[in-house]
Amino acid sequence: MNKHFEDDGLALHTDLYQINMAETYWNDGIHEKKAVFELYFRKLPFGNGYAIFAGLERIIEYLQNFKFSASDMEYLRDDLGYEEDFLAYLEGLTFTGTIKSMREGEMVFGNEPIMRIEAPLAEAQIIETALLNIVNYQTLIATKASRIKQVVGEEAAMEFGSRRAHELDAAIWGTRAAYIGGFEGTSNVRAGKLFGIPVSGTHAHSLVQTYKDEYTAFHKYAERHKDCVFLVDTYDTLKSGVPTAIKVAKELGNRINFAGIRLDSGDLAYLSKEARRMLDDAGFYDTKIIASNDLDEYTIMSLKAEGAKIDSWGIGTKLITAFDQAALGAVYKLVSIENEEGLMEDTIKISGNPEKVTTPGLKRLYRIINKENGKAEGDYLAMEHENPAEEKRLKMFHPVHTFISKFITNFEARELHEMIFQEGHLVYVQPGIKEVQAFAKENLELLWKENKRSLNPEEYPVDLSQACWDNKMRNIEEVREKVKIMNAMNN
Amino acid sequence: MNKHFEDDGLALHTDLYQINMAETYWNDGIHEKKAVFELYFRKLPFGNGYAIFAGLERIIEYLQNFKFSASDMEYLRDDLGYEEDFLAYLEGLTFTGTIKSMREGEMVFGNEPIMRIEAPLAEAQIIETALLNIVNYQTLIATKASRIKQVVGEEAAMEFGSRRAHELDAAIWGTRAAYIGGFEGTSNVRAGKLFGIPVSGTHAHSLVQTYKDEYTAFHKYAERHKDCVFLVDTYDTLKSGVPTAIKVAKELGNRINFAGIRLDSGDLAYLSKEARRMLDDAGFYDTKIIASNDLDEYTIMSLKAEGAKIDSWGIGTKLITAFDQAALGAVYKLVSIENEEGLMEDTIKISGNPEKVTTPGLKRLYRIINKENGKAEGDYLAMEHENPAEEKRLKMFHPVHTFISKFITNFEARELHEMIFQEGHLVYVQPGIKEVQAFAKENLELLWKENKRSLNPEEYPVDLSQACWDNKMRNIEEVREKVKIMNAMNN
Repeated sequence: MNKHFEDDGLALHTDLYQINMAETYWNDGIHEKKAVFELYFRKLPFGNGYAIFAGLERIIEYLQNFKFSASDMEYLRDDLGYEEDFLAYLEGLTFTGTIKSMREGEMVFGNEPIMRIEAPLAEAQIIETALLNIVNYQTLIATKASRIKQVVGEEAAMEFGSRRAHELDAAIWGTRAAYIGGFEGTSNVRAGKLFGIPVSGTHAHSLVQTYKDEYTAFHKYAERHKDCVFLVDTYDTLKSGVPTAIKVAKELGNRINFAGIRLDSGDLAYLSKEARRMLDDAGFYDTKIIASNDLDEYTIMSLKAEGAKIDSWGIGTKLITAFDQAALGAVYKLVSIENEEGLMEDTIKISGNPEKVTTPGLKRLYRIINKENGKAEGDYLAMEHENPAEEKRLKMFHPVHTFISKFITNFEARELHEMIFQEGHLVYVQPGIKEVQAFAKENLELLWKENKRSLNPEEYPVDLSQACWDNKMRNIEEVREKVKIMNAMNN
Repeated sequence: MNKHFEDDGLALHTDLYQINMAETYWNDGIHEKKAVFELYFRKLPFGNGYAIFAGLERIIEYLQNFKFSASDMEYLRDDLGYEEDFLAYLEGLTFTGTIKSMREGEMVFGNEPIMRIEAPLAEAQIIETALLNIVNYQTLIATKASRIKQVVGEEAAMEFGSRRAHELDAAIWGTRAAYIGGFEGTSNVRAGKLFGIPVSGTHAHSLVQTYKDEYTAFHKYAERHKDCVFLVDTYDTLKSGVPTAIKVAKELGNRINFAGIRLDSGDLAYLSKEARRMLDDAGFYDTKIIASNDLDEYTIMSLKAEGAKIDSWGIGTKLITAFDQAALGAVYKLVSIENEEGLMEDTIKISGNPEKVTTPGLKRLYRIINKENGKAEGDYLAMEHENPAEEKRLKMFHPVHTFISKFITNFEARELHEMIFQEGHLVYVQPGIKEVQAFAKENLELLWKENKRSLNPEEYPVDLSQACWDNKMRNIEEVREKVKIMNAMNN
């Protein structure tokens, strides 16, 4: 391997400016001031009505192992020219902060904190890049998978995209995210091994090419495998593939379980209906038809509308790369910082784009659930000291169009953050992957069908409390004054 | 970590069907038959006129370390139910094949083999998924980067996308691919460490938020850092950020190098022109303007057309995710296999989509370079035994519209594949990353400007030799006969 230094840790998996800011704080003696960052995205991906959070397990692993290695030190010193005093500080660094986070599988919406990171300023800054890198991808894929699964319904949805994933990590963490989003399994064996996700797959076209004809290939496969799914489109699906699969299955009788055929090209609506008819005519009523070939929620919707006879959907490229919107834009913003007196003080970032103005201060996030119908009325972002559960009548108003508001009375206010790390110690018991998947599924029951529609879903409200809104306005006003003064000073 | 088994190797980074096919071949005693697969994509991404190959270094590392671990065995046995005899075979497996490949940084076009894998059948099959996973992503990003760099021109292009990359591997291997494609550096420190790529970055908005105002923040940064690039859009770019940066730079004089300002929001054309004027008026002619914020080749083209004064471009999401086309569709197809007599025999895959029909047989790939002007006339795919260099007058014809043809006389036929592995042994000396970047840049000189245009570039020809074409036609005919026979047999 032609590498410059050994790959022996992830502490340097960060942007250079994080190191330079940490150095500035360290140099100024404020690197251990407590800072609070929130991690959130502004806009739901795919025009979907909700997102599904994934990434926490990987983040826990990253933070537990956070440590600069000897080769990291060598690189920072020799190649980048950092000095010994600052390097000595970095060398001893571990993660000592406190993290509250949504659980994996939680439904999440725009402009609400997925995670709240309270940590010594320099630490919180250095971990930003990796946290975003992980949450952005895994949440994107869990959401895409859930969206596809809404259309697939009760049939099986399988993740088949490893070969098109963005490098190796994406293949395995993406398929784990897809499982959280409701997929039944994957073709990736390593993902199966690491996460205990069901794996599936039988053979490719090359098996048929190797044996020159389907008859021999299917027989050879069946010699060693009881459960057989035959791929039938190597030469001609209806003239050769399907009849040969049926012929072989008849010849072998009980010696195999003729579990299915797989269609991987051509018109899947037409071919699946014809193949179903041929299988039924031959008495193979329980043999499933598995389809693949560039599928996504739109093609599946359309195939279903045409009455395609497909029992299981293999979804690759469009899922694992989130092809139609390949990035989630989660950000990590400072909302509060310890001042010189040791008190926490709000911070805000103003922007030319109004939707990019941050919401300052220490906050808590609640899901407001109507006790009468068990449905969620919206999410509610309140200041740390507020307790919406104590209110008889909760006012919820739109965070942009504030004149839109409603009052809720008979409700449960469910806090959405769990304590994960407390001063560097992991206090959260990680659920198994099946539990996470079940949690995600159960969460979706809180939404109305209207919020889950693939196209133009009804918007789910994420509202600020009055106190939170007032606090934001006060902070904006303060910055405006500051800019005026700066401007006057500079002229 | 809540993992099912330990993550201690990549041999299982494959699709389950590869294992099941390997088992079928092993069971039938043909698993060590020599098979030849070609790895190629059909269509250039982004409507670009060429692609840049990347991924070989990672593939070499993967193949050199290819070995099933004890925990892989345990998983295959206990969870998936594979039997001891076959497991014993897998346990001893290493990569023993021969690989010829393009070098990283090579220009590549549709329907020409990037790599030719000759290996025992079962081995060649098991490694397919990882090879595609790696080549598809890295080639996609090297191509996107090269495409963006064509528009950026002589100015600097920096990769800033780690936070939006598809998990951790994509962030580092993506930025390496971007460097190959012509980018000057990255913000990702781990990538800098591993690959020796230049890294850059100074500070984020949170530095300004931490110190409440830009004046203090810039001063604090400058206390420790000689080279200063100040981010000027935390509150108001022209009213606060730029004048404050200038004020601080004037105060500090020679104590810092006022290298640049960074614009990260707002109208980059307008702001950069105004900021340039303010910097020049203050005498900071050499201070650069660095721009970022969702840039891609189209936005850059448009900003340049407007006369934006930008010296360095920070490109994140749109590059590292290849946002507008997030997957390359490279495939891995069997073209030849050892028959019962030990002779190599062609194989073909037919498809309803004519462009998906494979080109059978052992082949070599040449770039035909016109000696008069040093430009490439096209690529030429010939049978193994052919030597186009011996021809005085080479006929090149379009592989689909065969009536389009031309004759070349004064040419060099440059073979595009290098020997990488010979019977499992690495025989290739890997070049350094700077060499790879230079090779990619130099390659582009072979193309006309018309082939490198961002929109609707002139198509570069990839032609088959007459022998190669005739061989393909013969194989198609044979399959047609086979289907007819099958169909007759089944009815």
